[in-house]
Amino acid sequence: MVGGELLRVLEARRFPVARLLPYSSGASRKSVSFRHRRLAAPGVDHSALAACDLVFFVSADEVSERLAPGLAARGVWVIDDSSAFRLDKRVPLVIPEVNASALSPSRRLIAGPNCTMTGLGVAGLPLHRRWGVTEIRVASYQAVSGAGKAALEEFFAQNRALSGLLALKSEQAPVFNAPRNSALPAPIACNVFPQVGGFDAAGYSSEENKVAAELRKVWAAPGIKISVTAVRVPVVRGHSLAAWLRFERPVSVAQARRLLSKAHGLELSPEGRYPTPLSAAGRGPVYAGRVRAGVDSRELCLWIVSDNLLKGAALNSVQIAEELLRRGWLRA
Amino acid sequence: MVGGELLRVLEARRFPVARLLPYSSGASRKSVSFRHRRLAAPGVDHSALAACDLVFFVSADEVSERLAPGLAARGVWVIDDSSAFRLDKRVPLVIPEVNASALSPSRRLIAGPNCTMTGLGVAGLPLHRRWGVTEIRVASYQAVSGAGKAALEEFFAQNRALSGLLALKSEQAPVFNAPRNSALPAPIACNVFPQVGGFDAAGYSSEENKVAAELRKVWAAPGIKISVTAVRVPVVRGHSLAAWLRFERPVSVAQARRLLSKAHGLELSPEGRYPTPLSAAGRGPVYAGRVRAGVDSRELCLWIVSDNLLKGAALNSVQIAEELLRRGWLRA
Repeated sequence: MVGGELLRVLEARRFPVARLLPYSSGASRKSVSFRHRRLAAPGVDHSALAACDLVFFVSADEVSERLAPGLAARGVWVIDDSSAFRLDKRVPLVIPEVNASALSPSRRLIAGPNCTMTGLGVAGLPLHRRWGVTEIRVASYQAVSGAGKAALEEFFAQNRALSGLLALKSEQAPVFNAPRNSALPAPIACNVFPQVGGFDAAGYSSEENKVAAELRKVWAAPGIKISVTAVRVPVVRGHSLAAWLRFERPVSVAQARRLLSKAHGLELSPEGRYPTPLSAAGRGPVYAGRVRAGVDSRELCLWIVSDNLLKGAALNSVQIAEELLRRGWLRA
Repeated sequence: MVGGELLRVLEARRFPVARLLPYSSGASRKSVSFRHRRLAAPGVDHSALAACDLVFFVSADEVSERLAPGLAARGVWVIDDSSAFRLDKRVPLVIPEVNASALSPSRRLIAGPNCTMTGLGVAGLPLHRRWGVTEIRVASYQAVSGAGKAALEEFFAQNRALSGLLALKSEQAPVFNAPRNSALPAPIACNVFPQVGGFDAAGYSSEENKVAAELRKVWAAPGIKISVTAVRVPVVRGHSLAAWLRFERPVSVAQARRLLSKAHGLELSPEGRYPTPLSAAGRGPVYAGRVRAGVDSRELCLWIVSDNLLKGAALNSVQIAEELLRRGWLRA
């Protein structure tokens, strides 16, 4: 799913692709469309990959684990959207607006972060730099597309089935239990559920742990305490976050708004307005709104939305590649 | 909408109604069904109301403001589901499992709380009693039925319109902007938005302020710091909450689970499982799950779901009336 977006982003941003070689790791996509041409996407050809200047991985962790380190060792730039190497100390985990400085000509394997964390990483940074974040609490509202194509098709099917059944009376409530689910852990049409990934012994889901660990790495702030509740909602694309950021010092809401309005890659809504997944879908920036004090003057509360398939994945990967071009480490 | 639920709850719990007199404050509902009989619901008749033993208000604030105090002054028990008197110091705001002790034979006007707060009020109380809550942060996932019938019909219409249009590609994203909205402040099908009510100068919505103020009153804990982000989600019924409760002392997750599993009116999911709006719809209890430590050992994080039309409104009102019967202040 991210692969299709990646091709559209490369086209739209006129990335200097001399030749595109699409490969398919699974059974699903056998051809892709790029610059108005249909290209076959056969199974992976190791030697052809090794001859590339740059390889994007937009597949499962196992595929990246098997292929990415070998390619990087042979000098190929590899930008990996899987979670396989994100916490590897030898691998830069990069959001260009946040930590392009982590890039290095000698570290050719580069990871892009979890799609839920990206919005928080971009929107929280200017506040962290100004006042020093000590604690973060985040509740997410995550789109079904983040769970993959099968989950999305399950959502569409449940929605079609429900649209004829939607009822309100309590004695009819059991009809809501009708939709079957297999790609997702619970029905998603007309529902929300607090599970993205499996749970660890402490009760946190893998998604919640990824957001915490990856944010600490991208901000180079290992001491920040973070607690996340990751929730799937019946939205097609666009992850939203309700975030509480606690600081070392008292903060100013007005100054926070000024910092956010100037931040790179971020669009701040005017007061009284806010972004939504629908308003952010298909767009590149991270969006923020509803900036206000939290439980006291050392805390800010904000609402963050970004397109999980774009800034959360494909666009971020292309922005990393553009940064490599800009530095002359990769040549057009 | 709550009115229809109220009648079903009175039937299902065999509340000793000798005679039911339904009145309609608006233009919408002109008759109701009760115990298999159709009853006309004409405009309000003051003298007939004053002759009742008990009057439930499930209408707008203005209707309660106009009628409820006069009835209570004449000795009629009044249970008001509007927000008109909830913060009035002379009016008990009651969740029977939490603060039935606030009821008094001399205070005949009784308010039921905001539907978003109820789940937190019930689920958080045993933890507050044990360790002393100092701070609360809550992100809500609120069903459309909480916004009334017109909002729900808008949601259904948008959902029908979208089910033929659902698309994933970013260049097709603008189709999601198609659904029109008038009852709600933004499109709700395949969307979420962080606005329930209007915003105050500090940036908080009226719903967020209600949850904070009413929880402090129901718990008789005016010093608790509370920050809420209230978000509407495309769910028909069932409000969910991601809550962080901070305590005076270090807490134990295992002990918290034991306290919650014994709490009155609460059902705790087994570890690794959780309630959802679909699983809670049409049911009376408050449901909780995913109990775990928050940012440190002085904080607990939990997921709470309750049916906003039942425990959040109609059922709570009937439970208050049952408590009056139990005490002999109201006679069958």
